[in-house]
Amino acid sequence: MEHSHRTEDGTPIFDSLDIDLVVKVLTNTAFSPFFVGIIPIFYIFQGARPSDSIVISSAIYWVVICAFWSFKWFSQLYRNQGSLVLRPMPLDWSEQIVVVTGGASGIGELLANTMAVRNVTVVVLDVNPIITENYNIAYYKCDVSKWEEVEAVSKKIIEEIGEPTILINNAGVVQGKLLVDLTPQDVQQTFAVNTLSHFWILKAFLPSLLKNKSGHIVTMSSALGMTGVAQMSDYCASKAAVIGLHESLRYELDKSIFTLYKCPQIRTTLVCPGHVLTPMFSTPVAVVKKIIAALDDQYSENILLPFYTNFIPFIGHLPSFLRDLVQWISGADYAMENFIKVSGLRPDESSLPEDFAKQ
Amino acid sequence: MEHSHRTEDGTPIFDSLDIDLVVKVLTNTAFSPFFVGIIPIFYIFQGARPSDSIVISSAIYWVVICAFWSFKWFSQLYRNQGSLVLRPMPLDWSEQIVVVTGGASGIGELLANTMAVRNVTVVVLDVNPIITENYNIAYYKCDVSKWEEVEAVSKKIIEEIGEPTILINNAGVVQGKLLVDLTPQDVQQTFAVNTLSHFWILKAFLPSLLKNKSGHIVTMSSALGMTGVAQMSDYCASKAAVIGLHESLRYELDKSIFTLYKCPQIRTTLVCPGHVLTPMFSTPVAVVKKIIAALDDQYSENILLPFYTNFIPFIGHLPSFLRDLVQWISGADYAMENFIKVSGLRPDESSLPEDFAKQ
Repeated sequence: MEHSHRTEDGTPIFDSLDIDLVVKVLTNTAFSPFFVGIIPIFYIFQGARPSDSIVISSAIYWVVICAFWSFKWFSQLYRNQGSLVLRPMPLDWSEQIVVVTGGASGIGELLANTMAVRNVTVVVLDVNPIITENYNIAYYKCDVSKWEEVEAVSKKIIEEIGEPTILINNAGVVQGKLLVDLTPQDVQQTFAVNTLSHFWILKAFLPSLLKNKSGHIVTMSSALGMTGVAQMSDYCASKAAVIGLHESLRYELDKSIFTLYKCPQIRTTLVCPGHVLTPMFSTPVAVVKKIIAALDDQYSENILLPFYTNFIPFIGHLPSFLRDLVQWISGADYAMENFIKVSGLRPDESSLPEDFAKQ
Repeated sequence: MEHSHRTEDGTPIFDSLDIDLVVKVLTNTAFSPFFVGIIPIFYIFQGARPSDSIVISSAIYWVVICAFWSFKWFSQLYRNQGSLVLRPMPLDWSEQIVVVTGGASGIGELLANTMAVRNVTVVVLDVNPIITENYNIAYYKCDVSKWEEVEAVSKKIIEEIGEPTILINNAGVVQGKLLVDLTPQDVQQTFAVNTLSHFWILKAFLPSLLKNKSGHIVTMSSALGMTGVAQMSDYCASKAAVIGLHESLRYELDKSIFTLYKCPQIRTTLVCPGHVLTPMFSTPVAVVKKIIAALDDQYSENILLPFYTNFIPFIGHLPSFLRDLVQWISGADYAMENFIKVSGLRPDESSLPEDFAKQ
C-alpha cells in the first residue's frame, strides 16, 4: 500500500494508471451521453444537413449510449425501490454500527480504518487483534468459522455496543494446494472460514436488520468465485458458494410471501475483487472506496474490480480453446505455484509447510 | 418415473413432448448444416440465379450455421485431445468400476441401475441401502459427508472390488428453509453432503485415476448452482461450490507444471439439472441418458438440462427488473414453500418439522 500517495482521510490523491482508469475516462468521453450528444450538433454547426449520413449515424450512436445508461440507471433504481425524482436520504454514518469479519488484516483492516476515520462505530471480529490508533474500532476476538463463538460474541456486541446495521462478511483463508495435497482439515477450514462464517453472521445479526427494516450486507467473494483455477479448488468453491448465498439472500429479502422478511429495503452488495495486489490493476484502496460508496449510496451493488473481472462470468461460454487461452494469459493457474500459507495457520500446521524443504 | 414407457434396457421408447424435444427437432432442421445447405440449392433448381438475394442470404445463413457447429465440434475436440480423423477407442464398459455416491435413491439410483444392466460393476455409497435386483451393484454403507467413513470404505472398495475408473459425485440433501430458520446443523449438513463429499471422494480415489492416467469424474451440481433463489440459500451455495470445484479440477488435470498430474485425458463432466420432476421438462431419465452418453463418448461435457438451464448463467447480467421477471416466471422462489424434508433426516431432526403444525 502506497501510503505516500494518500491524503489524510486515506483516499488516494490520484489513481494509478490502470485499465480501470481507462474505463473511467471512456465512460466520461466516448460512452458519455453528454459528450456524445455534442457530436451531431457539432456536425450541424459545421454546415452538415440533418439528413447527412454522418449526422444520422452519430445521432444513432448517441441514442444507443443513452439507452444503455437509461437501462442501467433504471435497473439500479428498480433494485433499490428508488423514487424517480428523489434520492434516498443521505446515510447517517454516525448511527451505523459496522461489523467486519476478518478485519484485522488485508482489505478488512483497510475498510475498518477508513470507516473509523469517518467516525463510524466499527466492530472487528477476527482471531487476531487489529493494531490501530482509531479509538472507535472495537475488537472482539472471534473465530467466525465457529457458530458457537459467533453466537456468544454477537450477544455481547448487541449488549455492549448495539444492534449492527452493516455486516461485512470478509473473513477468508487461502490454502493454495493441489486437490490431492489438501488435508481434510484444510478443506474444512476453507469452507468454515470462507463460507459458513457468512451463514453464522447472518444467523446472528440478520434478525436485528429485519427488525429495524434497514441495513446493508456486504458479501466478499472473489473473481475466483466466478471461475475455477488450478491449486485453488477449495478456495474457488468456497467463494462461488457465497455468490450463491448472496443471490438467495436478495430474493429472500425481496419476496413478500415470506412474512418473516418483507424487507426489500435491506441492501445486499457483492464484492468480487481480482488480483488486487497487482500494480497494473486496482489496489485494495479502490475496492474499499467502491464498498464505502455503495454503503453511502445505500444501493445494492455488484462490485467487480478490476474491470476485466466483469468478463469472467462469460469465459465459461467460450469455446474450450479460447477459454484455455484466456486462462493461460491470466496466469491464474500458476499464481499459487510458490504460495506459502502464512495467515490462518491452524494449530495442526507448522508455520513452514512440510514440503517447503523440497523446493 | 414412467416405467410403462421404457424398453427392457431402461431407456424410454419415445421422449415426451417438451422444450428439449423442440430443441432437438430444430437442431436437425433449421439449425442443421445438411438441412440448411439444401435451401440455396433448392432455389437454384427452381430457376433462381446464384446472384439472387434469396440464394445469397440462404447461403450466408448456411455458412453461419456451419461456423457455429465447426466451433462447437472443434471446442469439444480440443478439450478432449481428440484426433481430427479418429474417434477414441470405444469404452470397454466391462472393465469399468463406477462409484456412485447417494446411489440408493433419485437420479443416483436410476444411474446405478441403468449401468448395472449394461454389465458395469457399480459401487453404491449411501447411508441407506439400495433395493435392487441387479447382482452387479455392490452397496457400501457410507456417510460420504464424513472423511473418516469415505477413507475407510475407499480402502475396502479398492481391496475387494478394485480401483474405480468412474466417479459420480451425486449425493445431495435439501433443507428448504429460510436463512433465519436454518440451524447450524442444517448448514453444516448441506455443505458436508453436497460439497465436502466431492472433496473426500476425490481425495480417496483421484490418486487411482492419476496412476492409471484415465477415468471420468462426474460432478452433480444443479441449475440452482448457477443462480440463487429464496429458501434455498444453503443448497444454492453448496451447488455453486461444486461447479467451482469442477472447473478447478479441470485446470489442475490439464496443466503440465503439476508433476503429480499431467492427466488431461481424465474426463470431467458437470451436470446441472433443472426441474427434473416437472413433466413439461426433462425427466431424470433424460439426465441419466446424457450422463451415460458422456461416459460412453469419453468426453468432458457440461450437461445442462432442461434446455432453458443454458440461459441461467446469463440472467445475472440482465437489468434487475428483467431478472426479477425471469425469476418470477420460473417460480423458483416459491418452489420450496410447502417443502417437507424427508430424505437425509439427521438424528437431531424429527420426521415432521417443528413448525409443521403451524401451517
